[in-house]
Amino acid sequence: MSVIDEVLQNNLKYADQFTLGHLPMPPARKLAVLACMDARLTVEQFLGLKTGDAHIIRNAGGIASEDALRSLIISHHLLGTQEFIIINHTDCGMLTFKDHELLGRLEKQSGTAFVAPVHFHAFSDVEENVRRQIQRVRSHPFIPKHIPVRGFVYDVTTGRLKEITEPAAAKLPTAARRSA
Amino acid sequence: MSVIDEVLQNNLKYADQFTLGHLPMPPARKLAVLACMDARLTVEQFLGLKTGDAHIIRNAGGIASEDALRSLIISHHLLGTQEFIIINHTDCGMLTFKDHELLGRLEKQSGTAFVAPVHFHAFSDVEENVRRQIQRVRSHPFIPKHIPVRGFVYDVTTGRLKEITEPAAAKLPTAARRSA
Repeated sequence: MSVIDEVLQNNLKYADQFTLGHLPMPPARKLAVLACMDARLTVEQFLGLKTGDAHIIRNAGGIASEDALRSLIISHHLLGTQEFIIINHTDCGMLTFKDHELLGRLEKQSGTAFVAPVHFHAFSDVEENVRRQIQRVRSHPFIPKHIPVRGFVYDVTTGRLKEITEPAAAKLPTAARRSA
Repeated sequence: MSVIDEVLQNNLKYADQFTLGHLPMPPARKLAVLACMDARLTVEQFLGLKTGDAHIIRNAGGIASEDALRSLIISHHLLGTQEFIIINHTDCGMLTFKDHELLGRLEKQSGTAFVAPVHFHAFSDVEENVRRQIQRVRSHPFIPKHIPVRGFVYDVTTGRLKEITEPAAAKLPTAARRSA
């Protein structure tokens, strides 16, 4: 039996016990989460979210891609979410390769010289990556400035979230910051 | 207290009970799921997936966007997943608007004449939308032909998945199909 057939069996059991058929479309907690697709992140569980509470947007890396921005814009403007959180994590697969190496390998394997996507959004520093994604969301003209956008790194060894608050500028030496 | 602060409190409790710090990066069940971000879809729960089992990719509509394809390509080529499922659902927010109306409203509100995204991927027929997304994934040159790509509509009133197997051509009148 394929894994898909196995999860379909699981779904039949889930549906037999299902009691949540009355929930409205807009998320009850007015929250949208953008997180990595990583299998070790059971996002609703580690945030204590129940069915119906929040929009969950996930992709490789937890990137504020154009598509994630599309989802966040729809989430706020059509379905009323008022707070956004972005979650990256330790030991992410996106730290293990370089975009151009992966693209070269795929082009060679497939015999296709050019095709979208050409960017895979690999990164080398997860905290810096979170800061960049926060900036991408905050600076989008379709996302109102009053919406809190906060970013975190989830530690896959402890289950704990660490907030990324330090601005990139704080990485400068103290003297440089004082004169800035 | 903001909702984000509340879920951070929940996370402290989760981390206190956490025992899964040993899981490897590649998904144990070699499965990748592409689903809608809707708050009523607790994907891992309704598929009976445990922490570490599967990549979960989610966006508004469960669309095989360029970004979702990026995630699926990384999922297979770097982290070894071998089966893909696409999940849309009944009562989806994407059935409630038209792309050009939303874009017009956002441009007016923000005073911005042009910005990405310009497409929101609203749709009017959820089963047809699932078929299109299956085709988008299956036809991508970086996704090997041997990977099963199956699509479903999740019923938010029953918790049950319905497989979408009928090809679009089967919608033609019987006579037209016979002569095709």
